[in-house]
Amino acid sequence: MLNFTVGPVMSSQEVLGIGAQQVPYFRTPEFSKVMLENEGLMNKFAKAPDGSRAVFITGSGTASMEAVVMNVFGGNDKVLIVDGGSFGHRFAQLCEIHQVPYETVVPEDGCSVTAEQLAEYDDMEFTGFLVNLDETSKGVLYDIDAISDFCNRNELFLVVDSISSFLCDEFDMEKLNVQVMITGSQKALACPPGISVIVLSPKAVERVYSRKVRSMYLDLKAALKNGERGQTPFTPAVGILLQINARLKQIEAGGGVDMAIVRTAAIAADFRRKIRYLPFEIVSKSLSNAVTPLHPLNVSAYDVFTCLKDEYGIWICPNGGEMADKVFRVGHIGCLTFEDNDRLIEAFGDMQRRNLL
Amino acid sequence: MLNFTVGPVMSSQEVLGIGAQQVPYFRTPEFSKVMLENEGLMNKFAKAPDGSRAVFITGSGTASMEAVVMNVFGGNDKVLIVDGGSFGHRFAQLCEIHQVPYETVVPEDGCSVTAEQLAEYDDMEFTGFLVNLDETSKGVLYDIDAISDFCNRNELFLVVDSISSFLCDEFDMEKLNVQVMITGSQKALACPPGISVIVLSPKAVERVYSRKVRSMYLDLKAALKNGERGQTPFTPAVGILLQINARLKQIEAGGGVDMAIVRTAAIAADFRRKIRYLPFEIVSKSLSNAVTPLHPLNVSAYDVFTCLKDEYGIWICPNGGEMADKVFRVGHIGCLTFEDNDRLIEAFGDMQRRNLL
Repeated sequence: MLNFTVGPVMSSQEVLGIGAQQVPYFRTPEFSKVMLENEGLMNKFAKAPDGSRAVFITGSGTASMEAVVMNVFGGNDKVLIVDGGSFGHRFAQLCEIHQVPYETVVPEDGCSVTAEQLAEYDDMEFTGFLVNLDETSKGVLYDIDAISDFCNRNELFLVVDSISSFLCDEFDMEKLNVQVMITGSQKALACPPGISVIVLSPKAVERVYSRKVRSMYLDLKAALKNGERGQTPFTPAVGILLQINARLKQIEAGGGVDMAIVRTAAIAADFRRKIRYLPFEIVSKSLSNAVTPLHPLNVSAYDVFTCLKDEYGIWICPNGGEMADKVFRVGHIGCLTFEDNDRLIEAFGDMQRRNLL
Repeated sequence: MLNFTVGPVMSSQEVLGIGAQQVPYFRTPEFSKVMLENEGLMNKFAKAPDGSRAVFITGSGTASMEAVVMNVFGGNDKVLIVDGGSFGHRFAQLCEIHQVPYETVVPEDGCSVTAEQLAEYDDMEFTGFLVNLDETSKGVLYDIDAISDFCNRNELFLVVDSISSFLCDEFDMEKLNVQVMITGSQKALACPPGISVIVLSPKAVERVYSRKVRSMYLDLKAALKNGERGQTPFTPAVGILLQINARLKQIEAGGGVDMAIVRTAAIAADFRRKIRYLPFEIVSKSLSNAVTPLHPLNVSAYDVFTCLKDEYGIWICPNGGEMADKVFRVGHIGCLTFEDNDRLIEAFGDMQRRNLL
């Protein structure tokens, strides 16, 4: 199967080769070394300030979103959340569950939140800001410069979920004054799902240590403390962490994060150029390099997904809920090539000839 | 490396073969079918009563221990915990964090809690009981019949963490009147770590649905609800779930859970017979088939671990904390053979000749 979803995505042969090996015992200096390398490269690729820390949570991106909400915000905070899709909405639900006072700013459908919209929230005693940089459910990349400006002038603690944007779109924690960044193993890291990663600035680390949370598994103090010696408080998904290690080193050897972004951008641009004459509408006005959300003009989006899966051996990414028939998404992350794009375009062309598009 | 730890353990070639393949997209009927098979076989192997449910949490065993404490007990409960090692102690910490009133019963070192000890807690208004069937840190298997009797006559809701005991020691949820059983992917399931499994009796399912928990990721209502259609609320460790599927079917084809236990018991008995003339003391008086805890009479236990790792290509399982120098453990789970036991015994023999044992 050729995989154009936004996760799990296709892994490199080197990463798959590690999946074929026995998983090693991990309470060893050898595994600690791997973990310390992972932390160093994650900090580097996130362009995190000196003294930042990265922790690896065995769990989905939501586990890390929840851990961050619990570990850095509390009842005395008031956070602003960009609620432009199901992941933005999830941050709002998490604040609800953990009793963190919040308000939401809702961008126009398919668009980024704007500097003008944000300006309406100036001087309103917010203390934090939560945003999913690429709202994966809608394929909308938010204007992180406008968000960063807003947070800087209001002195807000900025948390960015970059789950699908990391390694795809330009991002600089230090320059943007981002305190926490979240990502997952199965997006552009192109490893199997099971690990999410949280990069914390020194200010965020300090905040985590100063707070008490009502959780053992999602208490980041334990993760930070154990991480100092390259370990985790509980048995992690060791195999996936070894795969992440190989992948991070691959990226480093291939020119680092900037070249990884160039590569994803090229795959995305190639795809978008090639679909120009197909009966699709791109429904995002602010695209991430990670994904293209498409509305098929003549047929059900979910039927396109099913037909490609069952008759062409290709996965695209269906949308859920009320969007299921209207929009599907094509991911540009993982080990995809220009030739893979061609195969998908050919399948679309064939479906068109069969009056299925 | 030859792996005699208690997790991660060695996987079969079939399981490793799945690790070598691309991880598929999972919001599909195909993956739902796999998950429903997983649930059915887990219920079957746990000998769970009709109408039981199994949920798969992407996280370590501790994530599931915490989820269970949160989802089935509350401030109106009073639970008794067998605190005979670090995992029993962890249940106590979890009750502390989640404000579940509890008391602990501490067995004699290296021994099971006894019927006589438990009788002292009769008629004391307990509502629940938490036990790690095999206290993995000490290699002590508790007397589950005595525990079940105690719970039955006091009408306690019995939760059993079988993380290292599942598929190793006889266990029958229905007969023992166990309401919740927990295990993990990296123990006798012999898959990579990253997934823990919770089997819930109909009574436990009802209790989960009746309670509100302050968590999104560890809210079992969402897992149960999504599980009805073979899905998970968040992106799971898809690859490991496919490996679990292969492994559960392997066990089924090989004679089911009873034969899996026979196999583990034979590996354990073979090892214990072969070490009779070596300078070790078995420090548990109530052994699980999963693991043998050994005190080397003449040298540091941690030095034995390091020497076997660095000079013989063999991992045994070190103990942590103050036990590190006194005790190591030899696991009997995963794809081990009698010949593997011989290799370890030969290494011990060689170390003895070198005055390292």
